[in-house]
Amino acid sequence: MIERLAIIGVGLIGGSLARALRAAGAVREVVGCGRALPNLEKARAFGVIDRFTQDPAEAVRNADLVFVAVPLGAMRGVFDAIREHLQPETVITDGGSVKGSVVLDASAAFGALPPRLVPGHPIAGTEHSGVEASFAELYRNRRVILTPLPDTDPDALARVQTMWETCGAEVTLMSVAHHDEVLAATSHLPHMLAFGLVDALARMRENDEIFRYAAGGFRDFTRIASSNPVMWRDICLANREALSAMLARFGVEMTDLAESIRRADGDHLLEIFARAKAARDRSIEQSH
Amino acid sequence: MIERLAIIGVGLIGGSLARALRAAGAVREVVGCGRALPNLEKARAFGVIDRFTQDPAEAVRNADLVFVAVPLGAMRGVFDAIREHLQPETVITDGGSVKGSVVLDASAAFGALPPRLVPGHPIAGTEHSGVEASFAELYRNRRVILTPLPDTDPDALARVQTMWETCGAEVTLMSVAHHDEVLAATSHLPHMLAFGLVDALARMRENDEIFRYAAGGFRDFTRIASSNPVMWRDICLANREALSAMLARFGVEMTDLAESIRRADGDHLLEIFARAKAARDRSIEQSH
Ligand SMILES: NC(=O)c1ccc[n+]([C@@H]2O[C@H](COP(=O)([O-])OP(=O)(O)OC[C@H]3O[C@@H](n4cnc5c(N)ncnc54)[C@H](OP(=O)(O)O)[C@@H]3O)[C@@H](O)[C@H]2O)c1
Ligand SMILES: NC(=O)c1ccc[n+]([C@@H]2O[C@H](COP(=O)([O-])OP(=O)(O)OC[C@H]3O[C@@H](n4cnc5c(N)ncnc54)[C@H](OP(=O)(O)O)[C@@H]3O)[C@@H](O)[C@H]2O)c1
Repeated sequence: MIERLAIIGVGLIGGSLARALRAAGAVREVVGCGRALPNLEKARAFGVIDRFTQDPAEAVRNADLVFVAVPLGAMRGVFDAIREHLQPETVITDGGSVKGSVVLDASAAFGALPPRLVPGHPIAGTEHSGVEASFAELYRNRRVILTPLPDTDPDALARVQTMWETCGAEVTLMSVAHHDEVLAATSHLPHMLAFGLVDALARMRENDEIFRYAAGGFRDFTRIASSNPVMWRDICLANREALSAMLARFGVEMTDLAESIRRADGDHLLEIFARAKAARDRSIEQSH
Repeated sequence: MIERLAIIGVGLIGGSLARALRAAGAVREVVGCGRALPNLEKARAFGVIDRFTQDPAEAVRNADLVFVAVPLGAMRGVFDAIREHLQPETVITDGGSVKGSVVLDASAAFGALPPRLVPGHPIAGTEHSGVEASFAELYRNRRVILTPLPDTDPDALARVQTMWETCGAEVTLMSVAHHDEVLAATSHLPHMLAFGLVDALARMRENDEIFRYAAGGFRDFTRIASSNPVMWRDICLANREALSAMLARFGVEMTDLAESIRRADGDHLLEIFARAKAARDRSIEQSH
């Protein structure tokens, strides 16, 4: 049982955690924290949180668990604000999409990485934002990656792992660097392609007409381009290196593909498409 | 009422047209044609067609309407095979994803473009192939683009338009070149990105692990990479010019994006992402 859970950033990710833990009867009191009052008032009206404050220091007072779910660019400020106000036994974890930057921000704010901070990332989400987009089932049957460091307290790690499992998630441990590379490939690069495609089309003169003839495949393909721009700016800046490497790798692939089209090399195109289809069909089977 | 409809290529597109017209009671007899017997036997067993032949010339005998729905690379062969066997009043149309190549193939096969040939393209589909993937509702509330030429017979055009409207589709007329440009942007380029992304990841050493951490957004984003590789090879070859131009335009966009990440230009990234999100949200609203 979590006696007092502080959620800093009561949006899709923070709100869904609170809802899931409440639904499981695993938390006694939830304190929400954010900047804008309307979102916090909505969160209380929905029953996602019991009370709120706009002051992170106040939010973490006597909390046994703190979950930080603000955009990555706001992590450092939150850590600075709560640093002096944690109980020695308080466990801190987060939901940020990049782990290297969170570890750096926490290390800078706290002087060194606190042993009771467990960096984490739920591999779950939608293209919507804010507490009204949150729901208790978001994490059910989804993976959560935790990236403990050598000094991470095993009890803190166990508590965070149990918290996520209570929400129906499957927890995997991974190094910080490995997490950031895997996510650059499976999430950050695809978001760049979707944003880049939609922006390229939007900038064409005939863009209204183009979007009119976009069918079902296009809608699914570009869904992630409706994601929160601030959150994605922060992810790009936070995972600059791994994402740049993936963009370069993808650039090589596309140059090869474009060259094959230009020289009408049907055999090579068929080879690329067949390999991609086989890999996707296989990966979808695995995940069912 | 269509007395005898010949479907050359009884797959997703051809099979769905037959099903829709049957469901609407708009066709008396459907003759199917293809190369492989099992698919044709399945089509007859499902009631999609009444009878079949492997000979296109035989299939079009006394048909009042012929629908050609084979991969683009097979269009020329079909036109050659049926050329001498059409009634003067037979209307021909097709479902090919590129219109310039179909017009060229027909012109070459027939000596000149037959006035009763109406090039067409239903903007509807899935990533599945074959008659077992077909369904009567595929075209309902979807767009169909017809690209008549100056010499196209108005009666033939009207018959084809009525046929699609009977399936619940909304018909738009467009020039061949314009169709091929719009589709390069909204369909062909997105498929290249999906195939390219999945292939790039599949070729990484850690590819098994990477696909394991791919979440819901990735699955939607890459769905179109499960499409038929032969069909897509043919589309690339058939729409080489317009697709190459779109790939180049996308390349410029991605170079700009990658550069902004490399120099940590958060303002420019935010601008790109916000413009893309606004364009997608707007286009989705329009289409509802
Ligand atoms: N969305 C996804 O698919 C997804 C998936 C996995 C992980 N994540 C990660 O989860 C985190 C939250 O994302 P989200 O999707 O939940 O975003 P969200 O719905 O926009 O929620 C973020 C919340 O943080 C608050 N916030 C922003 N800046 C703040 C600050 N300086 N101090 C305190 N609160 C602040 C916002 O409220 P105010 O504006 O009122 O302050 C908002 O309620 C991000 O780090 C993201 O990378 C997202
Ligand atoms: N799938 C989509 O999303 C979509 C959307 C709009 C338009 N289109 C276009 O529609 C056409 C058909 O696509 P589809 O998705 O229906 O493909 P499909 O499900 O694979 O069906 C194609 C059919 O054509 C037959 N075929 C192939 N080569 C042939 C040949 N040389 N002579 C006679 N029949 C032949 C195949 O049967 P056999 O192998 O037994 O001959 C198969 O039944 C393509 O031109 C495509 O560009 C597709």
